[in-house]
Amino acid sequence: MKAPERYVVILAGGSGTRFWPASRKRRPKQFQSIIGPGSMFCQTVGRVLPLDPRGLIVVTNAAQVDDARAQLESMNIPVTADPGRVVPGGALLVAEPRSRNTAPAIALAAALVSRLNPEGVMMVLPSDHFIPDEEAFRQTLLSAEEVALLGRLVTLGITPHRPETGYGYIRKSVQPVGRAFAVEQFREKPDLDTALAYLESGEYFWNAGMFIWRADVIWQELKAYMPELAAAMEPLRDASRKETLESDMARAYDEVTAESIDYGVMEKSGRVAVVPSNFIWSDVGSWSSLWELEEKDTDGNAGGRKLVALESTGNLVRSEKTTALVGVKDMIIVETSDALLVCRRDRAQRVKEVLATLKKLGEDHLL
Amino acid sequence: MKAPERYVVILAGGSGTRFWPASRKRRPKQFQSIIGPGSMFCQTVGRVLPLDPRGLIVVTNAAQVDDARAQLESMNIPVTADPGRVVPGGALLVAEPRSRNTAPAIALAAALVSRLNPEGVMMVLPSDHFIPDEEAFRQTLLSAEEVALLGRLVTLGITPHRPETGYGYIRKSVQPVGRAFAVEQFREKPDLDTALAYLESGEYFWNAGMFIWRADVIWQELKAYMPELAAAMEPLRDASRKETLESDMARAYDEVTAESIDYGVMEKSGRVAVVPSNFIWSDVGSWSSLWELEEKDTDGNAGGRKLVALESTGNLVRSEKTTALVGVKDMIIVETSDALLVCRRDRAQRVKEVLATLKKLGEDHLL
Repeated sequence: MKAPERYVVILAGGSGTRFWPASRKRRPKQFQSIIGPGSMFCQTVGRVLPLDPRGLIVVTNAAQVDDARAQLESMNIPVTADPGRVVPGGALLVAEPRSRNTAPAIALAAALVSRLNPEGVMMVLPSDHFIPDEEAFRQTLLSAEEVALLGRLVTLGITPHRPETGYGYIRKSVQPVGRAFAVEQFREKPDLDTALAYLESGEYFWNAGMFIWRADVIWQELKAYMPELAAAMEPLRDASRKETLESDMARAYDEVTAESIDYGVMEKSGRVAVVPSNFIWSDVGSWSSLWELEEKDTDGNAGGRKLVALESTGNLVRSEKTTALVGVKDMIIVETSDALLVCRRDRAQRVKEVLATLKKLGEDHLL
Repeated sequence: MKAPERYVVILAGGSGTRFWPASRKRRPKQFQSIIGPGSMFCQTVGRVLPLDPRGLIVVTNAAQVDDARAQLESMNIPVTADPGRVVPGGALLVAEPRSRNTAPAIALAAALVSRLNPEGVMMVLPSDHFIPDEEAFRQTLLSAEEVALLGRLVTLGITPHRPETGYGYIRKSVQPVGRAFAVEQFREKPDLDTALAYLESGEYFWNAGMFIWRADVIWQELKAYMPELAAAMEPLRDASRKETLESDMARAYDEVTAESIDYGVMEKSGRVAVVPSNFIWSDVGSWSSLWELEEKDTDGNAGGRKLVALESTGNLVRSEKTTALVGVKDMIIVETSDALLVCRRDRAQRVKEVLATLKKLGEDHLL
């Protein structure tokens, strides 16, 4: 068997609101330095480069395409928007005409990979996850690839170590598929009791939204379970020039509806397998989860050298300025050039309501 | 009886630490816009100008003399540092060589007024108090002046309306002196039970540190109760040129020790009288007392138009930036160009410990 041709598909079109005021509509979390060195997008790209992919396909949107290009070029990766000009090790940068959740973005990427190599392996990765142990991550991707080559839709299942209610879960079946397992069921975010039961059973994994499959396999399944989406994207399988690609995309996105790949394909297909994954992983879904990941001092404060904390514990501080806390507990404090947020750590989910209020007040420049 | 010649003495040498990060060593509270229009110093000067004083004597220190001059000139008040060149309605601006509490500053001012008019009335006022009802304040000063002309050391006693433990108290005697009362006793800051008893008795007033007396009367009492201070300042009674004044001050301040006028004279002299004062008054001693004075919205938040508050009550926010609070209760949040403070309102007194820590860390530029 000859070595598989790998394409890494990076989904970088999200417009997070949960890291306001650090993230903005035009500069979302993945292009920011939230945790670790450099932006989360750059870290995502950097993690897969040692796998020597034939090409990267970065799917983003018009508002973020310049940031994506600049960040790729800062890593010395040749970037093109022309599907006919992807060089080995280079990136094809595609801007969706509008955001339609993951299924259309993935179908688009599958069409583009199909033209390059119908049997090419796609590794589909979100661009804003935290995975500090890069080597373990890559080993898991290679295990998943082996299963994908058997014609499976492989998803990474993170072994849970706490009863997290903020993630979806995947239940494995007893049926092994290489180093993976067939999937019994996908589950939505559980309540705490359910999450505890999942944790104890040892049969559930966190759904990390990372997929490995052959382009021809996902295309078959798209045709089977999302036939309208597959039909709309079909012309893109022949797009060999930037202009064709753009006009084909414009037409396709007029037709497709928003849907996640989980709901559209993964929960329906009988070919899904899950690879148990033991590396540390977080989707860094909020300021609160960032606090959990950050290094903290003995008082549980994460805030770097410029923090003076008296009678203050459990805080996350992000500011260029010397910050003094007195009697402050379990707060998120974030200061940017034009806004300041002080938020109880256990209320981090309400940050999106702040944005709704700002919009109502006409402060669109802060969104 | 001819109209008394009034001199308003403004004590503007304090170097507050309690309004950090808004106030700094070189730019303390009185020269900042903390509450009300303009700086507290400008408000203090503006309040007494309608009394048409013969002159203002502003006592400050070397670090703040430029700010004081600039703020006086911004009010079109002629400023001189030369005691021989004080024009009617103008200000004599004097910088103490070092800070030695109120007694030396007041003795210095008494010496300077003595040369101009030994029987001149001195109205001695701190430069950082909040007194919104200016007319009531001036009427009280005029009442106090009548008593001062009888040869009394008059102090304003603010009628308390809550059992404040942060102020010193003055107990009146039953003996009236014009519209004032002889003073029975000065009391240090009480505990809460004592403060409640003071409030109920109706015999106690808050000590606001505002004094009205004739220059010759305070000079006699200084000679009686603080003879070393009076002796050290004696030469200044003849200083008629800037250079003489400065060299005399340098010599005098080498000898004098730090002492408050309350402890040095007021608590000992038998000539003290208190004028009951009913205007709203605060020494604005901390961020916490500022929150009490500020206008607040229905949730008890004081923070102006640029505040988005969810599930947040009882906060004071000072920032040029749009500020969002989520789940934040009873906090002081102050942002300046180089520092950020988040402090529980009932811990506002600990702000000075922040400065001690910054000093230890070598961050002197933030003090």
